Amino acid sequence: MLVSELVAHTGVPLATVKYYLREGLLMPGEATSATRSVYGEEHVRRLGLIKELAGIGLSISRIKAIVALIDNPGPSLFEALGAAVSTLPPSPEPGRHRPGADVESSIDSTSVLRLLGWTGAVNWPAVRQLDQALAAASAAGMPMDAERLANYALHMRAIAEFDIDHMPRESASAAVEYAVLGTALYEPIIAALRRVAHAELAASLLEPEGKVPHVP
Amino acid sequence: MLVSELVAHTGVPLATVKYYLREGLLMPGEATSATRSVYGEEHVRRLGLIKELAGIGLSISRIKAIVALIDNPGPSLFEALGAAVSTLPPSPEPGRHRPGADVESSIDSTSVLRLLGWTGAVNWPAVRQLDQALAAASAAGMPMDAERLANYALHMRAIAEFDIDHMPRESASAAVEYAVLGTALYEPIIAALRRVAHAELAASLLEPEGKVPHVP
Repeated sequence: MLVSELVAHTGVPLATVKYYLREGLLMPGEATSATRSVYGEEHVRRLGLIKELAGIGLSISRIKAIVALIDNPGPSLFEALGAAVSTLPPSPEPGRHRPGADVESSIDSTSVLRLLGWTGAVNWPAVRQLDQALAAASAAGMPMDAERLANYALHMRAIAEFDIDHMPRESASAAVEYAVLGTALYEPIIAALRRVAHAELAASLLEPEGKVPHVP
Repeated sequence: MLVSELVAHTGVPLATVKYYLREGLLMPGEATSATRSVYGEEHVRRLGLIKELAGIGLSISRIKAIVALIDNPGPSLFEALGAAVSTLPPSPEPGRHRPGADVESSIDSTSVLRLLGWTGAVNWPAVRQLDQALAAASAAGMPMDAERLANYALHMRAIAEFDIDHMPRESASAAVEYAVLGTALYEPIIAALRRVAHAELAASLLEPEGKVPHVP
């Protein structure tokens, strides 16, 4: 497709596409004449990735670092994975669902709750938050499927059970304080534990026996 | 203690303490004369809470809303919990560990990794991130204990296993892209699932049978 078609297809403005080309975030198209290039699926996909990374609050230089690792992961996949993920902030902003993006295929919170046998009311703020996060993943081309969601939900429910079992009952005030701080302070710990577990599993899977893994 | 001692004990400047008193975030001390009040443990604790909520990026008006719910949870604990937690942003900034804060009792990543039988290297960014999140929780008076950490880690490892099992293997580039997007897009989903599970469990525990739970 021509650059005008790439613009129409992705919704990324021409000036922005040109900027990404200049900065090396977007790979060049295939030149068909001195003034014309054609672009393909890889360009659509890359623009989707850049949009998503910008949408979760990453600066252009961080996006550049990630794109460089995707284009050239180097000899150690373990190190490339570690370097790419560590470019993300500890708490990425939740992706914003862009209206008009194609998210029809997304699993939404209603089906999630039915799948889990949960009664959750749609007016709960947490349910709306779940819907937004699911829509953002879909819009970025990484929709959750039912299997992954059931797996994640099972484990988060088990953690939530531990939390509720340990909620102080001596006063409503103490319970509210526990809920607020337990949400705000333990979410970053949960995210960090998952990242450590990823590194741990990736090391045993990808690193040669006995080598001490190192992430720069 | 006198207000000067409260300042010395908490490290919160006098002007800030006065501002919190005026705004109603900090409850008044007990007046011992026309110009003197004494303060106690509840004031120290409240200043710690305010500091923590400010540290994770909450505005004064949001902190005020949470403090109001702690001081006056109202007749439905379920609704107070929901309203307080929904005042938090979907992705609270990870708390910053303030140097000098008393976190000696905190469990650190080295003991965590030993506890879990993980080999994790201290130079992994994820391990440093875990340390910072653990220190922030400790500094806020909500340290993780070994039991909670083992519980959380077990479940996050199970989720990480699912993630790594589904990592594309056709190219290193695809694996890096999957790792970046799967971290950035699925962390908010994981956090939302935990919040929905909390609401679900709190509803069944606290709400009268048959009542449709409502969080404003």
